[in-house]
Amino acid sequence: MTSFRHLKSVIRLNELAEDPQDLTEEGAVTQKRIDAMIAGALGFQLFYAMERVSDLTMTALCELAEETTAVKKMASMQAGEVVNFIEGYESENRPALHTAMRDFFEQRSTSEKAHEVTELAYKECEKLRAFLNEIEGKGHFTDMVQIGIGGSELGPKAVYMALEAFHKSDRRVHFLSNVDPDDGADIFQKVDLEKTLVVVVSKSGSTLETLTNEQFAREKFKKAGLNPKNHFLAVTGQGSPMDDPSQYAASFYIWDYIGGRYSATSMVGGVILAFALGMDRFLEFLRGASAMDKVALRTDLKTNLPLLSALLGVWNRNFLALPTVAIIPYSRALSRFPAHLQQLDMESNGKQIDRKGKRVDFDTGPIIWGEPGTNGQHSFYQSIHQGTTIVPIEFIGFKESQYRDDIIFQGTTCQEKLLSNLIAQSIALALGQKSDNPNKNFPGNRPNRILFGQRLDPYAMGAILAYYEHKVAFQGFLWNINSFDQEGVQLGKQLALKMIDQFAAARQNKPIDPKSFPLGSAYLKHIRES
Amino acid sequence: MTSFRHLKSVIRLNELAEDPQDLTEEGAVTQKRIDAMIAGALGFQLFYAMERVSDLTMTALCELAEETTAVKKMASMQAGEVVNFIEGYESENRPALHTAMRDFFEQRSTSEKAHEVTELAYKECEKLRAFLNEIEGKGHFTDMVQIGIGGSELGPKAVYMALEAFHKSDRRVHFLSNVDPDDGADIFQKVDLEKTLVVVVSKSGSTLETLTNEQFAREKFKKAGLNPKNHFLAVTGQGSPMDDPSQYAASFYIWDYIGGRYSATSMVGGVILAFALGMDRFLEFLRGASAMDKVALRTDLKTNLPLLSALLGVWNRNFLALPTVAIIPYSRALSRFPAHLQQLDMESNGKQIDRKGKRVDFDTGPIIWGEPGTNGQHSFYQSIHQGTTIVPIEFIGFKESQYRDDIIFQGTTCQEKLLSNLIAQSIALALGQKSDNPNKNFPGNRPNRILFGQRLDPYAMGAILAYYEHKVAFQGFLWNINSFDQEGVQLGKQLALKMIDQFAAARQNKPIDPKSFPLGSAYLKHIRES
Repeated sequence: MTSFRHLKSVIRLNELAEDPQDLTEEGAVTQKRIDAMIAGALGFQLFYAMERVSDLTMTALCELAEETTAVKKMASMQAGEVVNFIEGYESENRPALHTAMRDFFEQRSTSEKAHEVTELAYKECEKLRAFLNEIEGKGHFTDMVQIGIGGSELGPKAVYMALEAFHKSDRRVHFLSNVDPDDGADIFQKVDLEKTLVVVVSKSGSTLETLTNEQFAREKFKKAGLNPKNHFLAVTGQGSPMDDPSQYAASFYIWDYIGGRYSATSMVGGVILAFALGMDRFLEFLRGASAMDKVALRTDLKTNLPLLSALLGVWNRNFLALPTVAIIPYSRALSRFPAHLQQLDMESNGKQIDRKGKRVDFDTGPIIWGEPGTNGQHSFYQSIHQGTTIVPIEFIGFKESQYRDDIIFQGTTCQEKLLSNLIAQSIALALGQKSDNPNKNFPGNRPNRILFGQRLDPYAMGAILAYYEHKVAFQGFLWNINSFDQEGVQLGKQLALKMIDQFAAARQNKPIDPKSFPLGSAYLKHIRES
Repeated sequence: MTSFRHLKSVIRLNELAEDPQDLTEEGAVTQKRIDAMIAGALGFQLFYAMERVSDLTMTALCELAEETTAVKKMASMQAGEVVNFIEGYESENRPALHTAMRDFFEQRSTSEKAHEVTELAYKECEKLRAFLNEIEGKGHFTDMVQIGIGGSELGPKAVYMALEAFHKSDRRVHFLSNVDPDDGADIFQKVDLEKTLVVVVSKSGSTLETLTNEQFAREKFKKAGLNPKNHFLAVTGQGSPMDDPSQYAASFYIWDYIGGRYSATSMVGGVILAFALGMDRFLEFLRGASAMDKVALRTDLKTNLPLLSALLGVWNRNFLALPTVAIIPYSRALSRFPAHLQQLDMESNGKQIDRKGKRVDFDTGPIIWGEPGTNGQHSFYQSIHQGTTIVPIEFIGFKESQYRDDIIFQGTTCQEKLLSNLIAQSIALALGQKSDNPNKNFPGNRPNRILFGQRLDPYAMGAILAYYEHKVAFQGFLWNINSFDQEGVQLGKQLALKMIDQFAAARQNKPIDPKSFPLGSAYLKHIRES
């Protein structure tokens, strides 16, 4: 494949970027433009009239998708071909089959490889259903603690919080991730251990934080005179050291072709979500995700929402040179969703080499951040409107609230006020406002789009999760980088182990080898003396 | 004052930035460098050897502080001079006196204006103490709901969460901010209304979200047959519509010279923090903040931690051209602190005009974001290490844990493992690592510094809060911008009111004036039809 900068469509887009659509120009943004720039699928609408794109830009972006065969690559990924690789270098060299974890519904994949994996995933769902029925009968587990970090926490927690309105009323889930001892101390003083299950999530069974926290948790149970075996569940690889009935009440399996950040719909998210929501609502969540997987295979940009969003993102990143993206859901339920997307996007596409191992000469994944609206309006929106660094925004909004518990105050509901703010911000950022007082001057041309749905229920949550998974994967395909590995986290891990050795030696008053990690020793000296 | 770009020190810094300190060069980072590049105050150390600065850079940064008379401006601010203004244009034109809210301890300000304000603030503390003693006697309030948004939520909530280990065991605080109806619905189904106090925070009594949520809350109490007057407290301006004993059990005062983002140590944070921590620990928190206020007045860069941090931030922002800053506390207690700093920094310094109303020709406040470590290591650190956008990091760490409930696992405590990771990341980011496999290549030169303290107790939390308040104020002084207003949030508010009118008209089947806000109508049509 031709490298990104030399693609015909990229050359064209660079020309267009010299004079991008000016949204502040009189008559540039009209009702007609808003009507025309809407894509839709599965009851969602994607409004993109407030992006700095013209029809010409959209044509060139379409060409970029075609030139890079992005949709074909998505199909290959979903069919189980090896997409996690770097050509000519040692790499993980495996498929990325998160879509197969939920392909239980309509238009199932015809690929044999994907089909096999789906069968395995379905078996785990059946095991989980049986397990939950069994504990339901006993009726005495009210709390679940998920021990896991990174993808074993962020996605599952974001979805768990997003669907709180649909939880079984007597069930709570807690997440223990950080090796900070205050994290575990806080959780275990809040729960009744007798009524608590602990889910330990580790593919390899070797993550330092998770092993340490499991140990921390097991000691709490032992001290309380309880047998951890009756309370601990494992989510791990089949045959891993954690797949051990003498230590765990049950094991649920995951596989190495499911990356942590893509694992929320596997058993990594499944055990806690099905515990909290019940199995049927968990399956609704999977059904929404799977439906969006199929949307991502469409060739028409006006209905392939993740591809459209990916292309608009590339326009902002590579052609308008904007370094960050803010994700702002006008929904308190999605308050931790930006943190999940931060991992999903930055771990997938924060890369500096392409698939051939060559240093890229263009920008890859942006810095992702965000908080819910309207809260952000009373916080960082000052900078969003008038700061010197332009931040493109991906808004998310819903027509209806989750609890349907609302009041009419001064003529409108809270939900209507929430939506009024969302719409107002989208327009204000794009159009700006001129004023004689320079402090009241808003430059505008601050691009944004809105993903709009009916109501954040389990199905919609699944669809939104998959929408972002595929947006990120598409951007990887467009840039021709590997979105499925994470070599960049290794160096810090290695050095941390060296530091741990130094702390352990200091604790035993043993000498520290001065050559092993001298800079670490320098820090350590000051910390110990402080 | 000469404009930023034409300052002598800035011209010098621009020269130095052409060839900034290369941290990856053999022998560049040594134990000696780490020993030399430490500043300290109040038991905190600021390690900055992993910033891309040389001795020459530090000299030029010192000159920048002198040329802009930054410390003198800090003294003026603390003395109550008018610092919130734009010359020659209508502006808020008032002092910023958050430091006077806590000047109850050593080395009190000699300024008459500041002293007066401190007396007023102290009176509120005494009122609060009496009120808390009174309800303590009654003994039946276990929960408090704070209704407020922006600075009335972010700072107080961040501090509340940070000090959970020091809370009175039977007291919980909830924060209701967003106009999203699911926010209130969720909180009020969790609390026992009879045992709940509601604190409504609004300086003017006119914030839409807060008024709406107060109404929502009052209806819950009425439905439960309770008289809201016995449960509702006001934090507001003296004489505002909310200063009304017929509606509130008590009123605590704030003043217009306390900006929302600088209000955590006023009654905005005070009522809930003193309720949760007890009055004595709340005063300890104020004592820490006040002590850091005095540190910010020192002229020696090696002990003026906020000024040093501000200068390093300006180096990264304006001379190394880095658009964002990540705040990464290796402490779960500080998990919401980055969200507070996002407001504090971006609302203060996300500005495009200088004090004379002139469009700036340099970058002001960066995009602030962050999550706790080690969690981030399993999330966005891929991009931090190998992405194409370099992110300077401000780490925060502590020698001891809060709960002191820890285990030894494989030779070290959790706290030691946490610190090992912090140290390892600081070094790994700066030095990088060469490899024949391009995917295992780490470019290094990713600048970072560490603020290191003994233990996150109320005093330390106060000090850290003030450290950041003054870092932000110093950057405003260095750039000669007004860090104390927020005109950039107005346009969105105005348009939101127009949208609310449209929703209200639609709800009553009244015609919408097609000229009032046609683009809003276009969105509304699609949303209603969806």
